[in-house]
Amino acid sequence: MKRKVTKRTESMGPAVSPSALDPTTLCPVARTVGIVGDRWTLLVLRELFTENHRFEEIQAQTGATPQMVAARLKALEAEGMIARRVYSERPLRHDYHLTKKGEAFYPVVLAMRAWGETWLKTPKEGRTVDFIHKTCGKPAGLGTVCESCGKVLKRADLMGALNPTYQAERDARLAAFKENR
Amino acid sequence: MKRKVTKRTESMGPAVSPSALDPTTLCPVARTVGIVGDRWTLLVLRELFTENHRFEEIQAQTGATPQMVAARLKALEAEGMIARRVYSERPLRHDYHLTKKGEAFYPVVLAMRAWGETWLKTPKEGRTVDFIHKTCGKPAGLGTVCESCGKVLKRADLMGALNPTYQAERDARLAAFKENR
Repeated sequence: MKRKVTKRTESMGPAVSPSALDPTTLCPVARTVGIVGDRWTLLVLRELFTENHRFEEIQAQTGATPQMVAARLKALEAEGMIARRVYSERPLRHDYHLTKKGEAFYPVVLAMRAWGETWLKTPKEGRTVDFIHKTCGKPAGLGTVCESCGKVLKRADLMGALNPTYQAERDARLAAFKENR
Repeated sequence: MKRKVTKRTESMGPAVSPSALDPTTLCPVARTVGIVGDRWTLLVLRELFTENHRFEEIQAQTGATPQMVAARLKALEAEGMIARRVYSERPLRHDYHLTKKGEAFYPVVLAMRAWGETWLKTPKEGRTVDFIHKTCGKPAGLGTVCESCGKVLKRADLMGALNPTYQAERDARLAAFKENR
């Protein structure tokens, strides 16, 4: 007897994890908030977008406890937003990378960045990161689309120059973390 | 004796609440998350953007307890994102409205909506709200800028048609809330 196999096709849209399909609401904001509506989850995502892929370095930069980081990473993996990769066989070590679904969350991070830069900074603090849009070679600006060419911004297409004060802040956090370990 | 009055000028940027100026980080995402990185705060903001301005109706639609709603509204008011307005003198009643700073948060909500519609829905569920961009008269699409004219989308410029299933969901929640009160 042949079993009928239903093949997932492009027109069906991306695979959705069952937990995301909150049956109590059709609202996409509520469903998103149900997954990422948590301070630590958002900071973990920020770190992954900052090319920080290792557990202890994520812990250092977010200031979360190991238990908190582990729980967020596990939940994000269960949602299909991140995937673990082996980067060392002996000893066995994993790091964490955004999947296509995780990368697609970038506009939310960029929109939070734009709002924070505009409303939660004093003028003399300056912008934390300035991005060049590699696709067009010009400044990307503060929005979710490039201010120079109008295209939707993806993390991989951006080249960032960190504000030296912010770079120093990150270096100091990592150093303090290593010292206290 | 004359007191010197420092007048806030446009070039100084928007007024920043002292609590938002997290001295431990220059990161605008971390500062934003420090204010709105909470499931209930984000749902309260969603309701305000949905033109739901009254305490009990916000409570009904978010499913939060009165204490949770009150704490979030108080914090958002302290941050200058919302303002209370008197809508009844006797008895004295207030409702809640987004300020300019609160309205400016809309791209974050739109970006969460876009991600949720794309990654957390089955195709047959359909889009929850379809927006027409009043400025250009054409469909606004799913991004933070209008897919027809490319301008940054503001809530006031959008005219939405709720999916009937979602409208029914909201009606049912309000009815259940009133019944249980």
